Amino acid sequence: MTASFAQLPKPPYYAVIFSSQRNADDDAGYGEAAQRMVELAAQQPGFLGVESARGGDGFGITVSYWTDEAAIAGWKRQAEHAATRAYGREHWYDHFELRVAKVERAYGSKGKS
Amino acid sequence: MTASFAQLPKPPYYAVIFSSQRNADDDAGYGEAAQRMVELAAQQPGFLGVESARGGDGFGITVSYWTDEAAIAGWKRQAEHAATRAYGREHWYDHFELRVAKVERAYGSKGKS
Repeated sequence: MTASFAQLPKPPYYAVIFSSQRNADDDAGYGEAAQRMVELAAQQPGFLGVESARGGDGFGITVSYWTDEAAIAGWKRQAEHAATRAYGREHWYDHFELRVAKVERAYGSKGKS
Repeated sequence: MTASFAQLPKPPYYAVIFSSQRNADDDAGYGEAAQRMVELAAQQPGFLGVESARGGDGFGITVSYWTDEAAIAGWKRQAEHAATRAYGREHWYDHFELRVAKVERAYGSKGKS
């Protein structure tokens, strides 16, 4: 997966918040596919960035950022992504939730270090 | 932190997406404060739920969910939260980004298991 923070423009833009509980199966296959999906998303029109974290308990959150709903719809239709998504639902996740949200404001800070 | 998935109403509602890079300091103090903030948030008017994940590299995403912007503003003003937030910026994080978004649609699925 990409490391840490997405570099994003000023809002508004869209966020796809994907929360998931991994099962214990197929770590190698999952890791390879996750990396491939990030590479593929980055080539997609309207992609702005992605952030992802998963704890040792297998619960993870990935937030991908997009210019608008049309870009999200385009990514959903992307053929390899659609196939991987269908495979993942069957094989890699016990449970997932997906929420699509319009980012209205944002701010950040780098600490002292 | 709370375990895994938030139980949320149908959209619309608001999401506060907090991405952060922990430094290596004060794991005990941080863990205690994080737990306390979840307990405190849950008592706050308009709180809907929270999901959180952090990987072994210290990069984490916490998404808290709220009924509306007024609820988010109320939580931001909550005195103990404000004090902990200020402390955390100085002591626990190398970098954080916060994005406030209106969730427009959502769906989920439990897998076969």
